[in-house]
This record gives sequence, C-alpha cells and structure tokens, in this order.
Amino acid sequence: MTLLDDDRLLGTDPGLRAIARDLYDGIRDLPIISPHGHTDPRWFAENATFADPAALFVTPDHYVFRMLHSQGVPLEALGVPRADGGATEADPRAVWRLFAQHFHLFRGTPSRMWLDHAFQTVFGVTDRLTPASADAIYDQIDAQLQTDAFRPRALFDRFRIEALSTTEAATDDLHWHRMIKGSGWPGRVITAYRPDGVIDPEMPGFADNVARLGALAGEDATTWTGYLAAHRNRRAYFKDFGATSTDHGHPTARTEDLAQDVAARLFAEALQGRCSAEEAETFRGHMLTEMARMSLDDGLVMQIHPGALRNHSGPVLAQFGRDKGYDIPTRTDYVRALRPLLEAVGHRHDLTVILFTLDESAYARELAPLAGVWPCLRLGPPWWFHDSPEGMWRFRQMTTETAGFYNTVGFNDDTRAFCSIPARHDVARRVDCAFLATLVATGRLAADEAPQVAHDLTYRLAKQAYRL
Amino acid sequence: MTLLDDDRLLGTDPGLRAIARDLYDGIRDLPIISPHGHTDPRWFAENATFADPAALFVTPDHYVFRMLHSQGVPLEALGVPRADGGATEADPRAVWRLFAQHFHLFRGTPSRMWLDHAFQTVFGVTDRLTPASADAIYDQIDAQLQTDAFRPRALFDRFRIEALSTTEAATDDLHWHRMIKGSGWPGRVITAYRPDGVIDPEMPGFADNVARLGALAGEDATTWTGYLAAHRNRRAYFKDFGATSTDHGHPTARTEDLAQDVAARLFAEALQGRCSAEEAETFRGHMLTEMARMSLDDGLVMQIHPGALRNHSGPVLAQFGRDKGYDIPTRTDYVRALRPLLEAVGHRHDLTVILFTLDESAYARELAPLAGVWPCLRLGPPWWFHDSPEGMWRFRQMTTETAGFYNTVGFNDDTRAFCSIPARHDVARRVDCAFLATLVATGRLAADEAPQVAHDLTYRLAKQAYRL
Amino acid sequence: MTLLDDDRLLGTDPGLRAIARDLYDGIRDLPIISPHGHTDPRWFAENATFADPAALFVTPDHYVFRMLHSQGVPLEALGVPRADGGATEADPRAVWRLFAQHFHLFRGTPSRMWLDHAFQTVFGVTDRLTPASADAIYDQIDAQLQTDAFRPRALFDRFRIEALSTTEAATDDLHWHRMIKGSGWPGRVITAYRPDGVIDPEMPGFADNVARLGALAGEDATTWTGYLAAHRNRRAYFKDFGATSTDHGHPTARTEDLAQDVAARLFAEALQGRCSAEEAETFRGHMLTEMARMSLDDGLVMQIHPGALRNHSGPVLAQFGRDKGYDIPTRTDYVRALRPLLEAVGHRHDLTVILFTLDESAYARELAPLAGVWPCLRLGPPWWFHDSPEGMWRFRQMTTETAGFYNTVGFNDDTRAFCSIPARHDVARRVDCAFLATLVATGRLAADEAPQVAHDLTYRLAKQAYRL
Repeated sequence: MTLLDDDRLLGTDPGLRAIARDLYDGIRDLPIISPHGHTDPRWFAENATFADPAALFVTPDHYVFRMLHSQGVPLEALGVPRADGGATEADPRAVWRLFAQHFHLFRGTPSRMWLDHAFQTVFGVTDRLTPASADAIYDQIDAQLQTDAFRPRALFDRFRIEALSTTEAATDDLHWHRMIKGSGWPGRVITAYRPDGVIDPEMPGFADNVARLGALAGEDATTWTGYLAAHRNRRAYFKDFGATSTDHGHPTARTEDLAQDVAARLFAEALQGRCSAEEAETFRGHMLTEMARMSLDDGLVMQIHPGALRNHSGPVLAQFGRDKGYDIPTRTDYVRALRPLLEAVGHRHDLTVILFTLDESAYARELAPLAGVWPCLRLGPPWWFHDSPEGMWRFRQMTTETAGFYNTVGFNDDTRAFCSIPARHDVARRVDCAFLATLVATGRLAADEAPQVAHDLTYRLAKQAYRL
Repeated sequence: MTLLDDDRLLGTDPGLRAIARDLYDGIRDLPIISPHGHTDPRWFAENATFADPAALFVTPDHYVFRMLHSQGVPLEALGVPRADGGATEADPRAVWRLFAQHFHLFRGTPSRMWLDHAFQTVFGVTDRLTPASADAIYDQIDAQLQTDAFRPRALFDRFRIEALSTTEAATDDLHWHRMIKGSGWPGRVITAYRPDGVIDPEMPGFADNVARLGALAGEDATTWTGYLAAHRNRRAYFKDFGATSTDHGHPTARTEDLAQDVAARLFAEALQGRCSAEEAETFRGHMLTEMARMSLDDGLVMQIHPGALRNHSGPVLAQFGRDKGYDIPTRTDYVRALRPLLEAVGHRHDLTVILFTLDESAYARELAPLAGVWPCLRLGPPWWFHDSPEGMWRFRQMTTETAGFYNTVGFNDDTRAFCSIPARHDVARRVDCAFLATLVATGRLAADEAPQVAHDLTYRLAKQAYRL
Repeated sequence: MTLLDDDRLLGTDPGLRAIARDLYDGIRDLPIISPHGHTDPRWFAENATFADPAALFVTPDHYVFRMLHSQGVPLEALGVPRADGGATEADPRAVWRLFAQHFHLFRGTPSRMWLDHAFQTVFGVTDRLTPASADAIYDQIDAQLQTDAFRPRALFDRFRIEALSTTEAATDDLHWHRMIKGSGWPGRVITAYRPDGVIDPEMPGFADNVARLGALAGEDATTWTGYLAAHRNRRAYFKDFGATSTDHGHPTARTEDLAQDVAARLFAEALQGRCSAEEAETFRGHMLTEMARMSLDDGLVMQIHPGALRNHSGPVLAQFGRDKGYDIPTRTDYVRALRPLLEAVGHRHDLTVILFTLDESAYARELAPLAGVWPCLRLGPPWWFHDSPEGMWRFRQMTTETAGFYNTVGFNDDTRAFCSIPARHDVARRVDCAFLATLVATGRLAADEAPQVAHDLTYRLAKQAYRL
C-alpha cells in the first residue's frame, strides 16, 4: 500500500494529465527556495533530535490541532502548552492516539496531503493512520527521530533546501542565527525582519519593545529620529544574518505618508500609550511607508501580510496564548489602503513590495490590477488558509489574466511544520503544472513555452523576487 | 424521449464519471433527511389533493415566477395572489400556458432541473414543456393529482422522506402539527422554532407579536424576564412537536452579549417602538446569544440564516406581500459579527450553531476558518440562490480545505415546492459524488474512504447535526 | 508554424470538446455586433491608413503598456504620449522592439491571445513575436498597413461587423459621426451618449462642460429645467447618429430619487463648485434616475459601468493623463445603491438598464438575483479586467443559475484596439460554447437546445438588448 498517488493533482483528463506530468517531471527535483516561513532557527543551530512524533506533527501545528478542536477535542488533551500554566496532556503517545482517532476529519484537506506526504516520504510509513495503526506508526517514526539522519540539518539537506528564511522580531538578538553562522554548517538559513512588535502601538508591551529596539541598536529610540535610526541599524544587523526581506503582519493594508512632524507626534503618543485605535492604525500605516523608504536604501524586499483578525477567542488567548488556531481572515481593501505608500515610492522598480491576502475576493478585483501596473508590486502566493490545491488554483485563475505569471513570486511554504516543507512545495509544483497544462491543452499557452514558465514559477521567480 | 440524463452532474471525463457513478450508486436510494424547509404542514395534516399543476409548480414558487417576471410577465398574469385584493389570473391553465411559453428562460438553471425531475419522476412526463405540449402535460399532471397516490402523505412516502422539518413562527399555535400528531400517521413531519417576529423590533407588529407570545406561553412577556421565560416555554412546546432546531433569519449575523439590565432596557424600548435602527440591530444580536444559551439548556440546534435584504421593491411588497422574489442577498460579515456569541458560549461542544450564507465570498475567508476551529460551529449547505450545482460545487471547493467535510451538515432543501424535494436532494447527492470523485481521481482522497464520506454527506451528518 | 490552436478554449475532455466544437461551428461566422466600445470614429470618417505597428498595437492600448510598465519599463520608452509635453520615444520600431523583448510577460493572458489572433488572422504573421523576430514582423505588418485593404473601413468589412458603437461625451459635436453619415459609406458605426462630464460635479471643468452642453443644445443649462432639457436635446441629437444607448461610468452604482427642488438646489451648488463629496455622489446618483426617466421617453438603453477608481497614481495622471492603466477596480454594492432608481422606474419592462461590474463577488450575490427579478435589468458581459476566458467562465458560472441566459446581453468588446475586436468576440464565442457544452455533457441542457442558446448569446441577445 502507499499513501500517495504518483499523479496526484495533475488533472483528471488523460491528455491533460500527460502534459502536466511532463511539465512536473521537468521541475520536480529542483531545489527548494523557501523565502518565507516560521521554522525555528534553534533547530538548525543546535541540530538536536526532534522529541517525538506528537511534538513534530501535532502539538505545534495549528492547522492540525484546530481541526480536532473544532470537533470538541480540548486543546489540553492534544498537549498544546498552556500560557496560564495549566496542565496539559504530557504523554505524546496519548496525544498521537487522539490524533489517529480523529484523522478522518482531514479527509479532503491539504493537511491530510502534507501529513501523508511526510509520513511516506520522510518516514517510510505506508499504512494509513488509524486508531489501529497508531501505535505502530508512532513507533516507526519515533525510532527514526532518534537517529542522526533525522536531525534538522540532515533533513534540511535531504529536503534539498537551497535557502530557508525564518522570521524574527526586530527585537530578537538573532542568537540562534549567530550560532548557525558560527557553526560552519553550509546550510543557508537566513532571517527576515519582522518589526510588528515595535511598529504596532496596540501590541502588548509596545513601549518596552521600542526601548529594547533602541538598546539593541544603540540608539535613543524614544525620539522619532532615533527610532527610525534604530530600525535602520537593526535592518542592517538582520542583513548580516542573511536577511533579504522584511515582513509586516498588520490588521489591514492601510498605509499613510504623513509629514515627519505629524508622524513624530503620533509616535510620541504611541509610546505613552495614548493612541486611539484610529491613530494606531494611522501610525502602522505610516510606518509601512517608512519601511519602504528604508528598503530603497538597503534593498530589503518588503512583504505585506494583512487581514488576519488575531485571537478571535479571548478565553483561548488567555489560556493558551497566541497562534492557537483562532486567527480568522477578514475582508481586506488594498486599493485605497496602499495608495499613499504607492504614490510615495511605488513607481520605483528597484523597490519590491510583495502583497499577500487572506481575502481571495481581492485577487481579480484589486491585487492583480494593482500588481499589473505598479512597478514595485508583486503578488505573493496563496497564503495560510488558501495554501491548498483549490486555493492555489483560484490564485492562478484569478490573477494570471491581469498580472501574468511574472508579477508573481513563486511559492512560500510559510510553515512552522518542518516536515511539511517538501510536501507543500510539491503541492504547489503539481498545481502549477496542472494549471499550465490546462493553458496548453486549451490553446492559451504554447507547448514550448510552458516548461520555461514551470521553471520560473518553481525556482527562478522566488530567487529573483526575494533577491536570493 | 426522456427529460433526464442518467449521468447528469457526474462529471465529463469518462474516468472520473465512472468513479462518481459508483459513489452515487452507493447512496442514491438513501432516505431523505430534510431538516430545514418551508413546506406547509397543513398538507400533511389534511392530506387533501393538490389543486392543479399551476398551484403546484408556478404560483407559490418564487424561483419560478421571479424568472418570468424578470422578462416582463406581470405577477398577476401568473396568478400570484395579491395582498391588496387586486385581481389576478384565476384560470390555472392560462397560468400554465404562460409558464410553458417562457420555459426556455430556465435553460441552464437549477429550476429547470428540478422541474424536469418532478415532471418525469413524479408524473411520468417525458416530453419537454413547450407551448405545443403545454395542454397535454397540464392534463397529464392534473389527472394524477386527483388520485390518492398523489396526495401529500403518499408522495411523502414515495419520496422516501425519513424526516421533514417545516418552519413555524414562535407565535404559531402549531395547529396543523397537532393535527398531524393526532392523526396516527407515522410520517415524521416536525416543526422548527422561528422567533424572528418576536425578536426583531423592526418587524411589523412586533409588540403585538410579543403579546401573543406571552399569551400562548402564559407569561407576562412585557417584562424582560417574562419574555425570556415565554421563549423557553414556547421552545419546549415546539419540542413537543418534534422540533430539534431553531431558525434565525436576521438581516445580518450580528450578535451581542449585553448585560441583562441593558438588554432589558432595550427590550422595553423595542416594545414601545422607540428603537433606532442600530438599537434594533443590537437587540436582535443580543437575542441570538440568549437563544444560544437556551439551546445549551434544551438542546435545540441553532440555525443562523443572515444576509437577505427583504422586499427590495416597496411597490411589489405593497401589492403582493412578502416572499415574492424580491429578496436580494447582501454582503455579510461573520467574523466580528459572531464574536460576542462565540466568546460567550462558542467553546461548548454540546451547542450546535449552523451557519448559512448568501455571500459566497465568506466561504473560504470567514466561514470555513470559523467552523474549522470553534467547537459549536457547523456550516449549513449552500442556501437559496446558491442551492445549485455550481453553488454546491463552490461550497465544497471553498470550505473543504479548511473546515473538512465533518464540520458540514449535509443537505437542506429549504423549499416550499414539495415535488422539488427529491430533485434537490438528488442534485446535492450527485454534485457531492462528483466532487468526491474529483478528489479521488486527483489523489486527494483514498478510493476506499470516498464511499464513507458520500454516505456521511448524504445521510449521517444531517441526522447527527440536527439531532434527528 | 501557427500562433493559434484551432480548438483553443473549447475544453480538454475529448467528448466535451466535440460538443463545443459543433456548437462553435454553428456560430463562428455570425456577424459581429459590437454595441459598446471605444474605437475612434475618426478612423471610419477619414479612412486613413494606420500609422505603424506600434501605434496600432502598443501605444494606445493600456492592457499592453501597463504590463510592460509593471515590470519597470517607463511609459515614455513605449511612446505613450505625455500630457505634460515631456519627450517620449518617437521611433515606432524602437517601441516595437521593447514590446517584443517583454512579450513573454503576456504568457497566459488574454492580451496574448488577442495579439496573436490579430497577428495571424489580420496580418498573416505565423512566427511568435520575440526579440529575434521583432523586426521582420514589424516590417510585415507595416507594409500591409500602407495598403488599402488595411484601411479602417476595409477592416470593418473584413471583420464582418454588422454594427459598431463608439462612445462620445455629451458635449461632443459628433463631427466624425457626421462625416461618416455624410460619406455614403454603408458601415453601421453609431455613437453612444456618455454624459459623465456633465453629470459628475467632481469632473474637472464640470461647470464649463455644462455650459457647453447648454450651448450645443440651445438651452440655458444653468437652470435645472434647462439642464434637463439640454440632456433631452442632446440625447435626441445622438439618436440622429444612430445612438441606441447611454453609458454611465460613475465611481459607484449609487442612485437617488430626489424631489425635483432638492435636485435643483444640488445642481446649483454643483455648478458653483460647492458640492461636498457626498453631495456630488448624491447628485450623480439622482442623475441616473433622471437618465432612466428620459430613457422611458426616448428608448435609449442605459448602461451602468461603476466601480473603477480612476487614476490611482497622481504622478502618472499629472505626467500622462487619464486612461494610462492606473484605473483599479473597487468593491461595489448594487443592492442598496440601485434601489432608488429601481423603485422609481424599475418595474417598467420597456426600460432596459444593463449592469456591468468590476467586482465579480457581486455576480452571484447581487447582480444575478437583481437581474433575475427586476423587469428592467439585464447583465452586461464580463468587463475590462474580467474580459478574459476565466472571467467569462466565472460570469456564466455565477450568473446563469439565478438569472439564466436571457437576462444577459451577449458580448461587448469595449475596446479601443480595433484589431482586437474579432479576437475578443471569438474568445467570447468559444468560451460560451465550451460552457454550453459542459451543461450538455453533464445533463443540464438538452443537446437540441444548446445551438439555439449559442446563437442567442452570440448574436440575437445583443441586437435585442441594445435595440439594434
């Protein structure tokens, strides 16, 4: 038995599938460029073994535990750590059994594809996970995890990762990245500059974060000019550890281009915790434009990831903390929101701003038309809830005709689940090949052009857009 | 000649269609669970013959008459009764001829599939309805309608309906349901508690409705506590007539969780007709949370059907009354709207809240992410304007990857057109099987798992979610 | 070699494609009805040769130059004329070479299909445009452009255009149309009444435009009654030059039905430049209802094209003027917006209002439900950014099931690129045939009905809806 169909996602019509398979064969073994994600740099710094199957596949992966939780399984029972110090299930095998018992919930979901892919290709599992097979599969995975071939660096090589970006807060000291850099290990694990905690006046501990930013940068970040200088300093520091990008996860895509004295006054009020919600939004918006200006100087590519309403459940936030599956997409406007930044710096082709969305209704209506004209703009791949075969398909269907392929930037896995990286890239490659095959089969793309596009989408555009 | 293709909706690629047909063969004859609809309980109480073909297929079905009306046919000419007492066409054969004359308007629509299905499978009609065939088909249907085999209870059995829910206002005395219950007929026709008329301060006659609620419940419903007690009493009464659910058709999905004294003050103002539009919306929103709390006590499943702007034409409302095809969907937010209710009671897995939408842009962005994490939430099937093959397909494509299949609840026919019930369920079964076959054919679902999912979607999930 | 696949867009499954090809063969050679577009009437009046390949395919076509611009090519380098008098590339061959160098950007876009179609079918080009082939193709096209067979009227005949509507401002003197009419040439080139410049108080030069309107009409357009009379007069004048429609490109779909004295006061303030943004919006909205009332008198079909945020880049507007690729779609509400107009005159079936959208999320949610009931409403074809195979497919998928085919109006090419007219109509015909074939292959449309629908969509509905 096998968990994976060799021709999965390559289409149903035999003629079309043959075209897709040819395209896929041409790019399936290309190295992985992973320019945006949330793996833990500590893994590559320490290169310790992963603890156990539950810690690898269940406990840290909100895609997984939110599904079980939605059907009534308490997060505690899945061993999700509590922020309030309460007890949670400590036996990984018990967690695993609960996972197996609910594995049918994932039927038809991308999580199922990613899990099966990792089970089979990483751990050689060929039986389906069920309550009956749970223990044997647990043992099979667990035994391998204790071996050197399954340490993070070995897997990194085995996954053929050419470059992997993690994401660190602006106030992170990059301890683990320094350790990686000093280790002599040749794997290219780089960081990305995520300044939300020092840009968003509504973040808990904003003033403390800014103080820490100043301390790390050796600047008086309590003044507007010192604050900007501290950003410049930290961006340079991040660049020393390979960073080629910044990342901005604001609630909306709002940008502003305020006069400097207005911005300075807002910043002063933010530091004193006196911003209204509207002022906080204005300040965040203005800082996107400041970040874009700094990008023109230091060349960092800017990523804007708006639209998540975080921590939809107050009780879950209080008990378990952030990133527990309770982040929900919201409707997002880009057209009016981005205009101030774009009018300020958007005509510069040496600036790259990559836009993401959790609101697919913006693809054809706003994002493709914007990226299809503004020289600085590129479209990031389908993100988060839309990082699925259907989501990828909708992305291509709704953006290609206005923005083409060359205003997109290849795939991001955006994951904290290390073993899902090959699976996720493989899904993207297959869906793109099936999409290209459909264009070929319907006379919308010449057969000799398709392999070039497939290569671009898989490899070249990601390297180029992220300046890797 | 035949009106129906045996393989309709099962896909075009022969390989995929073979998989779909196998799946469909496994579930096509399962009993119908119809947990939400608008058939008239009087039919089953009195078991009288239906009047004539026009009264069965045209006059009461807003899907049908709105299409003819959109092309200039006056509603009067279709025999739609006037609220203002004006004259309408009284000859059912004249209505039928007009219907036949415009039957081409339904090409490509689900109404055409439902009508053809009923014509062929219920009445044995095999010729297409045209001006030329109109009289013969009228006679063929009319003759059968006079026979016992075509009375409501006989059709109920013939349609293999295991359970059918009607919907009654909170102030309905359930006269017809009492008659059904007392008749000894074993058909399971149950009611559902629809309290909009006593919850929405903007409904005409709100205070009178509340007074009647109190009278029926033996409570002083003019006080806040009496009003809540009256709801509890009526819910229990509805449960006596088989109700397992409540239904809420608010203009938006807004919920609130007010302090009791604030709610009591709002209620008092509502009774006096002094609510602003915003206060009315707040009150409706708060009452959803009260209803959810009562559901935790009495176990009734809660259905939220928001987003219709009713009676878009004032003149048509004045002349013909409600439900005349002039209800139009609007953009609907769920994320912020539902938060108060969810934070109050949404972590309880013994509560079931089924969400519907008329705004498909919310499927992937809001509804699937919400249902994929909140333990109380489930997604209702595509509703009303989206209750079509393409609409069903979009529903599965946009919700499965985040919410899976097991946060959905099977199909609702939601119809007042009795003969369309088998047709509508058949369409849903076929589309679901074609969707599952696509997953199988593209390696996203194992072939041995698909029949189980098909059975769940057709039968088990509806029974389970609605506690039938 | 050939640039075009004979079976392009007709589907991938062989069985389905055979059905689609039969349908397409039945309608491919029907004359073109082009009831809405932006070709230059001067072409047909003077019948001069087109200047050169760059002037024909690149410089005036924002679909084309925006794509190159999005990848960093300055508009100046493409010879796009500057509004501020600055220099631009004057050598058409240099522009053409730059175009060829970036031609790969159009892979997978409809622009590529239109260009290849025009290259091959109009100019006999069979090699792909590349930097290597650029000069030869330039020469091949350029040489033909100098011949009589490639003058506008000859191409009009060769394209089998039965009727072509241009669009002129209400204040246009229709000089070129008068010249066409007086020329004795039998080609049916008509105008359409576009009064935005004299209806929108926020248009630059609004008061001057109104003054000019009055002067042309011989009315004192500074009074409300004179202003309305001037509209009536100009509409009649446009009808003399064949106009059968008006066109309204407002920022939103907002309509109003104000009392006449209120409208008169607003108009007076607008003329004095004292309208707030909200008042300007109200005035535009009211004028749509006035236009609809005039349509009831003079029979002109009304087209509403809302939702573009024009000139997203202030700098580009200042340097290059309007229509330079910087118009971006926005979210658009129709339900509340259209209600005042509809309640005033929407029940009249002798009024035709054709709705367009740049917000596809409105198709299934708002537009199809509205057009499926209001007697005056029809749905225009997919517009602008959505005028693509995928966009056309989404239009049929999301509107047919509620509005049917007969509340749609056939295709509009809406183009200023003359040579793309046959290409665009051909794409629409193919997509419609593939859509119909899918319905036939899945049992949703009878095989003998499909050819009739194909003919209606291609030819009859456009003539009927636009009263041509």
